[in-house]
Amino acid sequence: MNSDILKELRSIVGADWCLDSPADLTAYSYDATPRYQNLPDAVVLPASTEEVSAIMKVAYKHRIPVIPRGSGSGLSAGSVPLKVGIVLALNRMDKIKEIDQENMTATFEPGVITAHLHQAVEAVGLFYPPDPGSMATSTLGGNIAEGAGGLRGLKYGVTKDYIIGLEAVLPDGQILRCGGKNAKDVTGYDLVKLLVGSEGTLAVITEGMAKLVPLPEAKRTALALFPDLPSAARSVSRIIANRIIPVTMEFMDNPTIQVVEEYAKIGLPVEAGALLLMQQDGPESVCEQDIAKMAAICREEGAFDVQLAKDAAEEAALMTARRTALSAMARKRPTTILEDVTVPRSHIAEMVEFIGRTAKKYGIQICTFGHAGDGNLHPACLTDERDEEEMERIDQAYDEIYAYALQLGGTLTGEHGVGASKAPYLEWRMGPVGMDVMKRIKLAFDPYNILNPGKLFGHQTRRRVVVRS
Amino acid sequence: MNSDILKELRSIVGADWCLDSPADLTAYSYDATPRYQNLPDAVVLPASTEEVSAIMKVAYKHRIPVIPRGSGSGLSAGSVPLKVGIVLALNRMDKIKEIDQENMTATFEPGVITAHLHQAVEAVGLFYPPDPGSMATSTLGGNIAEGAGGLRGLKYGVTKDYIIGLEAVLPDGQILRCGGKNAKDVTGYDLVKLLVGSEGTLAVITEGMAKLVPLPEAKRTALALFPDLPSAARSVSRIIANRIIPVTMEFMDNPTIQVVEEYAKIGLPVEAGALLLMQQDGPESVCEQDIAKMAAICREEGAFDVQLAKDAAEEAALMTARRTALSAMARKRPTTILEDVTVPRSHIAEMVEFIGRTAKKYGIQICTFGHAGDGNLHPACLTDERDEEEMERIDQAYDEIYAYALQLGGTLTGEHGVGASKAPYLEWRMGPVGMDVMKRIKLAFDPYNILNPGKLFGHQTRRRVVVRS
Repeated sequence: MNSDILKELRSIVGADWCLDSPADLTAYSYDATPRYQNLPDAVVLPASTEEVSAIMKVAYKHRIPVIPRGSGSGLSAGSVPLKVGIVLALNRMDKIKEIDQENMTATFEPGVITAHLHQAVEAVGLFYPPDPGSMATSTLGGNIAEGAGGLRGLKYGVTKDYIIGLEAVLPDGQILRCGGKNAKDVTGYDLVKLLVGSEGTLAVITEGMAKLVPLPEAKRTALALFPDLPSAARSVSRIIANRIIPVTMEFMDNPTIQVVEEYAKIGLPVEAGALLLMQQDGPESVCEQDIAKMAAICREEGAFDVQLAKDAAEEAALMTARRTALSAMARKRPTTILEDVTVPRSHIAEMVEFIGRTAKKYGIQICTFGHAGDGNLHPACLTDERDEEEMERIDQAYDEIYAYALQLGGTLTGEHGVGASKAPYLEWRMGPVGMDVMKRIKLAFDPYNILNPGKLFGHQTRRRVVVRS
Repeated sequence: MNSDILKELRSIVGADWCLDSPADLTAYSYDATPRYQNLPDAVVLPASTEEVSAIMKVAYKHRIPVIPRGSGSGLSAGSVPLKVGIVLALNRMDKIKEIDQENMTATFEPGVITAHLHQAVEAVGLFYPPDPGSMATSTLGGNIAEGAGGLRGLKYGVTKDYIIGLEAVLPDGQILRCGGKNAKDVTGYDLVKLLVGSEGTLAVITEGMAKLVPLPEAKRTALALFPDLPSAARSVSRIIANRIIPVTMEFMDNPTIQVVEEYAKIGLPVEAGALLLMQQDGPESVCEQDIAKMAAICREEGAFDVQLAKDAAEEAALMTARRTALSAMARKRPTTILEDVTVPRSHIAEMVEFIGRTAKKYGIQICTFGHAGDGNLHPACLTDERDEEEMERIDQAYDEIYAYALQLGGTLTGEHGVGASKAPYLEWRMGPVGMDVMKRIKLAFDPYNILNPGKLFGHQTRRRVVVRS
C-alpha cells in the first residue's frame, strides 16, 4: 500500500492501530472458514464512528477495498480480504452503551462479544435470544452483518428479528442512522433489516440496537435417543403438530454422536441412530408440561431412551456437548468444512438421508447435526484441505446437497451467510431476477465496489446440477 | 388515456376488468384518508401474476404511473392516484393458496381480506397475529405494502415480522420471488423485508407467505378506568417493568372515552381521565396470573375501577368498543383525521399530554387513543376539511406533534405508512443521508418512477418546527 495512504490512515487512528507487519497481516488473512486466505495491505482498528467515517473517506477517495471484521469466527469467509485492501477490525468498539429496561432495548458498539450482551441483559432480568454457536467469541457487529442464528431460533427467531436500530457508515463515509426504540415503525424503507445480513457489502455497522424480551422464568432440558433417523424426524413433526414450539430442538446423526461422545465422554450410546436435545423455557408449569409431552411423543415414536436433565449442572453438560460438536470434529482430521443448508422443517428426514447417501457415493465423511425445529442442518465434512482429489469429490457432493436442498424448497444458508464460499451458488437460490435486483441495490450503496468485494457476488455461477432423490 | 393503451390493457385482463367510466374512476379516486383525491385514467383488475406482469410491461413501455391498491382502507393516502395513471386493483386475486400445518405457513394472493386469513388458520389451530384496525376489510397485499400493525403488536409484532416469502412484479414486468418456508434464511439481501412497508413504490406484491404460530390456548380481558392520564401511564410502565408482556394494552384518553361511550353505550364512565383495555393470551394458568397481576398494578397506581371480562361475550363487547373508536368519531364531525405518531413506550404520558396541550393551543378537538404497550398513539382530529382556516390550524398542530414525537426519539408513523400525507415530513425522521439512501434504492428498482409516484418522496420537505416541552 502506498505510504501516503498509510500515513493518512495512521493520522486517523494513531500509529498503534494501523498494522502492516507481515505477522499482523497474516493474523487477519483468514477467518474460521477453511480454504480461504489472503493477506490484506493493512489492518486498521478504529475507536469510534468518526474514525470509521474518516477511514471510509480515505478508502473511497483511493478506491481501496475495505473488509469489515469482528472476531473472525465467520463460516462463509465473509471477513477474508480476498481483494487485498484494508481490514477494518471493529474490536476496539466494544462498549455496551445502554440497557433501557423500560423500553427493553440494548444499544451497543459492533465489537461487543455476543455472550457479554447476554450476561449484561440477563443480570437485569432481560433476554437477548440470538445465540450463534460462536457466541463466546463472535461480535454483535459480525452477527448483524451475517444475520447470525443459533440454537434458540425456532421459538425466538434470529439476529434479524431483534435488531431494531443501526448506525452505519456508507462507502463514501457518510453516517446513516436508522430505526430506534419504537416498537412499531414504518417510516420509510426498512434500512435496518436490509443492512442486517448484508455481509459488510453495503455499509459498516458502527452501532446496533436490539429489542429484548423478559428473561424466561424457567428452563427444562431433555435428551432423546433414537434407533434411527426417521423416528427422530417423526418426533419433531409430531411435537410441532401438537402446537408445542420448544426453544431448542437440536439434532445429531450417528456419525456426529460418535465423534461428540469420543470427545466429551458424557455417556452417549454410540450405537444410537440419532438424538434430539430438546429444551423448553417459559413459566415453570408450561415448561414441565411441554417437556413431559415432548418426552412422551419421542417414546411413542420409538426413542429407546429419554433423559430429563435433573438440574442445571446436567442441563449444562448436555448443552455443552452440543456446543462442542465442532471442536470434537476438528480433532479428527485436519479440516472441518461446516455447512449450513436449510430446508422447510417437514423435509428434514429426506435431507439428512440424502446427505448420508451422497457422502457414501463420494466416499467422504460427513457428520450431520443442527437445529431440527428450524430445518437448519450443519452437514460437516471431516477432511484434509491439502488432498486436492478429495476436495474435488467434496465439492461435487456439496453441489448435489445444495441442489437437493433447493429442490425441497430449502435454501443455501440458514445462518452462516453467503460470503465467498457460497457466492458461486447464490444465483441457484435467487434466480436471475433476484440477482439483478441485488446487484442494483449493491450499486446504489457502493458504486465503486469497495465494501467487502468478492462476497455475495461471485465471479461466476457454478454449473447447476440436477439431483434425483 | 390513449385508446391504444386502453386496448392493450383490455387485451390483457378482458374488457370487463379495465374500467374507465367516470363513476368507476371516481370510486377509485380516494382511500380512507381525508383530503386526498384524484381521478385515475383507468382502473385495471388483474386475475393473475402473469396479468400483473403484462400490465406493468405496458406501463413501463409508455412510462405510465401505476398505483397498486387493495381495499382502499389505508390512512396515509398510499393508494390515491395522485399522478393520474392506472389504478391496479388486486381484489380479484383473493385466494388462500395453502395452509401448511407442518411448516406453519400460509400462502395467499394479495387480495385476500386479512380477517379471512385469520379465520382460515384459526380453524386449524394456528394463528396469524397481525390485526390492523381495518382487518375486516383490508387486504393482506395492502397490509404488506404498508407494513400494517394492529392491537397485538406489543407481544406478537407486526406484519413485517410474519411475512417470510413474497412474489412481486417489478416496474419492468419481471417477476421476483424471494424468501420461502425456511425458518432461517440468510441467502442474499433480505428483499422480503425491504418490500414489506415499501408502499407500492418498488414492486407490486402478487403473492405473500406468512409464518404462523400456534393459536393461544386461552385469553383474558380486563378494563381499567383511571382518574387521570399519569396513573394509566404509570400502570403501563409498571406492568412492563414486572416483565409482563400482554398481547394488548389499548389506551383511550377522556375525549375518546366520551365519544366512544356516546356511540357504543357500554357503560364507560365519561368522567374517567383515561382507560386501559388489557388482554393477555397463552396457557390458561399464565393468562389468569398475568391479568390478575395487571389488575392489581392498575389498582395500586390509582385505577378507580378494574373490570375483568367474565366471558367471551363481555370480552367481545370491550374489544368491539375499542375497534369502533374511529366510527364513533366519524359521527361527530364531517372529517376525522386519524394520526399515527409513535414514541418509545417510556414517553407515552409526555406525548399524550403534549397532544392535549397542543389541541388547546390551536383550538381544535383531538381524541387520543392507541396501543400503549407499543407507544403507538392515534391522535384523531375531529374537524371539517371544508373549513380552510381550521385546517391550517390543524396542520400547524400536527407539525408540532410530529416534531415533539421525534424529539422524544419517536417516529412519524407506527403502522399507517408515509404515503402522501407524511411525505413532506419524511426527511425530519430519515435525515438527509437516509433520504439519499432511500432515493437510490427507489431508483435501483424503478428508474422511471412509475410505481406509486408521489408517495414516500414528497415534492418538498415541510419546514421543521422546534417545540418546547
